[in-house]
Amino acid sequence: MSFRFEIEARDGSARTGRFFTPHGEVETPVFMPVGTVGTVKGVPQDTLEELGVQILLNNTYHLCLRPGVETVRRLGGVQKFMSWDRPILTDSGGFQVFSLSDLRKVTEDGVAFRSHLDGSSHFFSPESSIAAQIGLGADIIMAFDECTEHPAEYKRTKDSMEMTLRWAARSKQHFEEHKHEVPWFGESSASSERPRPSPKDGLERGTHGDDCHHEPASADEGSAFLPPEAAVGHGQTQALFGIVQGGMFPDLRRESAQRTVELDFPGYAIGGLSVGEPRPMTHEMVDAAIRFLPQDKPRYLMGVGTPEEIVHYAAQGIDMMDCVLPTRAARHGLLFTSEGRITIKNARYAADEGPLDPNCGCKVCARYSRAYLRHLYSSNELLAQVLNTIHNLAYYLETMKRVREEIRAGAQCRRPARRDDSA
Amino acid sequence: MSFRFEIEARDGSARTGRFFTPHGEVETPVFMPVGTVGTVKGVPQDTLEELGVQILLNNTYHLCLRPGVETVRRLGGVQKFMSWDRPILTDSGGFQVFSLSDLRKVTEDGVAFRSHLDGSSHFFSPESSIAAQIGLGADIIMAFDECTEHPAEYKRTKDSMEMTLRWAARSKQHFEEHKHEVPWFGESSASSERPRPSPKDGLERGTHGDDCHHEPASADEGSAFLPPEAAVGHGQTQALFGIVQGGMFPDLRRESAQRTVELDFPGYAIGGLSVGEPRPMTHEMVDAAIRFLPQDKPRYLMGVGTPEEIVHYAAQGIDMMDCVLPTRAARHGLLFTSEGRITIKNARYAADEGPLDPNCGCKVCARYSRAYLRHLYSSNELLAQVLNTIHNLAYYLETMKRVREEIRAGAQCRRPARRDDSA
Repeated sequence: MSFRFEIEARDGSARTGRFFTPHGEVETPVFMPVGTVGTVKGVPQDTLEELGVQILLNNTYHLCLRPGVETVRRLGGVQKFMSWDRPILTDSGGFQVFSLSDLRKVTEDGVAFRSHLDGSSHFFSPESSIAAQIGLGADIIMAFDECTEHPAEYKRTKDSMEMTLRWAARSKQHFEEHKHEVPWFGESSASSERPRPSPKDGLERGTHGDDCHHEPASADEGSAFLPPEAAVGHGQTQALFGIVQGGMFPDLRRESAQRTVELDFPGYAIGGLSVGEPRPMTHEMVDAAIRFLPQDKPRYLMGVGTPEEIVHYAAQGIDMMDCVLPTRAARHGLLFTSEGRITIKNARYAADEGPLDPNCGCKVCARYSRAYLRHLYSSNELLAQVLNTIHNLAYYLETMKRVREEIRAGAQCRRPARRDDSA
Repeated sequence: MSFRFEIEARDGSARTGRFFTPHGEVETPVFMPVGTVGTVKGVPQDTLEELGVQILLNNTYHLCLRPGVETVRRLGGVQKFMSWDRPILTDSGGFQVFSLSDLRKVTEDGVAFRSHLDGSSHFFSPESSIAAQIGLGADIIMAFDECTEHPAEYKRTKDSMEMTLRWAARSKQHFEEHKHEVPWFGESSASSERPRPSPKDGLERGTHGDDCHHEPASADEGSAFLPPEAAVGHGQTQALFGIVQGGMFPDLRRESAQRTVELDFPGYAIGGLSVGEPRPMTHEMVDAAIRFLPQDKPRYLMGVGTPEEIVHYAAQGIDMMDCVLPTRAARHGLLFTSEGRITIKNARYAADEGPLDPNCGCKVCARYSRAYLRHLYSSNELLAQVLNTIHNLAYYLETMKRVREEIRAGAQCRRPARRDDSA
């Protein structure tokens, strides 16, 4: 059993528990910091560990372009590549193709697009996305979906949802056929054979070739992945999650949830939200989908949110969230604190000796003054981005930790209360 | 006694020992990383501590422009401002004025210049430089000098050297009259009074005003520095070092050294080198000056050098060095290792699982592969600059630590040898 989810306590719709992956367990609800190309921008991995980061998100689209799946696979997968031995989740690349790339062309087969880095041509299909994600070797990988644009008409949204369902089935089929190719076990070819990087490898391949249209090399071509029996012997494979789409139409969200569940995944994501719609609509769509997702499987709401929102969605029964907000906002000097948001470049902080957040125990708040952080930001110093990111992540992680504790406490309060007051 | 220097062992011209400052002691020979505006670019202070950084250099010119001396002084000095409680040295601003600023005009009084940041007008004299350095509150501060350009004719060089000597005397006089104004002790005004930053304070003042022409506020203007008796009561003041100039002429280097020593400083720097001259000339000028510097005072060679050079100069009897090379080169992907220099963007490292330097014990070499560091650099990721800087500093600090050990070992080997073979 490579993936397992256990609920430990419930409080209303909210639940707390943990899931188990080949690289360790994760307490839920969990916030997953975004480490796009295998790094949370500016933060060393040991600092992420100190912060209590349980699981990171990497972006398949970006890693496909740089350094290329084949490079990461030969180096033993993303965990080994970035020296992070806790769990990792990769997205399918679908969202980035829709939000970042140029000249996108969507067909039933998949999406042809040009890299935002250099305009080079690439192609993602359900099969190539899953192949790339197997090559990268994250613990949790995502079905390839179409993120429907907002606003979109009903028919367009339904057609898109139907295609995402067909792509989910294709994603699952490709995964089942190739899941043993995960590059976790044994010596990677890079250490055992020390091959010279070929012109089609690494950056060169990623930026000029069709590297995202990944075809696993067969064994007689000198492939480094272990034969099926080796990986199966370890009993460990990745977990492939399905993604619910359906735009801003509750009935399509319901249908998408029900039919995705019929395909049977170990976890379900809700995608296509936080794409410009008003927040009450987001909440309504989450609600429309979540009631048709199984209780015993983790639910992952993609790409949210503010500190207030992650608390809200956890209360709605979401178990996993990711968002660039804490890290991206930090780099732009927007800091989340228990006393509200702080724009650190503001002149009011120039002589402020106090910590960023007097209620925060992170190493930034323990050591540096607002005056110093303001100076670093105003001076465009690298350390501003590093320290701001550490604090914002600490704030998000602490928020989620408090949510877990509150769910446990809420569940405990209720139990004796029922015994005493059940009549 | 605020500053004291003890030599513990000698090996030829080289010596190892330690100096004592109000913020702690420093083993020599020492390499001082450059933290221009109160930060070693990209590296948090706790990491600098882990690296064993003993003393940092801050640039007076930059801190004058941002956040302004008055802001730092009110916050208790640079140590408190940047949360670094080990020793700090500030330069006089002279070198930056000559290398960075526009429209420089030098007179006997001082240097008028325009900020490289925004073109605002400023003025540095020996008195204003020392006043700024007292306000910043580093443990070691430097006399205001003219860094003679290279190449320069003999007469021009001699005239410049003569002015530097007059400026050294003025620097010392101003220091003696104001050294009690150092902002280390007691509550800073920022914490005790929580003043609103005035329009002339902080960035606003630094970038538009004449902030570098610093005049300490008198007590009846609400000044935060303690009256003379308070600082004297702690028995702690800064140490002002003199600077030897003399361009590329050995006789001027000798004269500058002798006459600077006559002014009597607790330590002596050799300035105006590494300004474009060939290395053998640098060595000759160091040699011409160092033989006329007293044995019992620390000697600081400003702005050098490569790893090979810092070893060489330590052997010549230099006790202190600083250089932007390890940090700046790191940000440009040039890494120093026991196996030579590495340009990390090179494609040969794309699949290299080995550490940057197999003989380095730093946390970068302990954790990350060359392939990952190459990927970070190629992807223009912040973490590349952070990790590269940590490694290069570790390499420099370890080099200097080895030099100290070798001097001690050399001194020990020689002693018994003399006893046995003295005839």
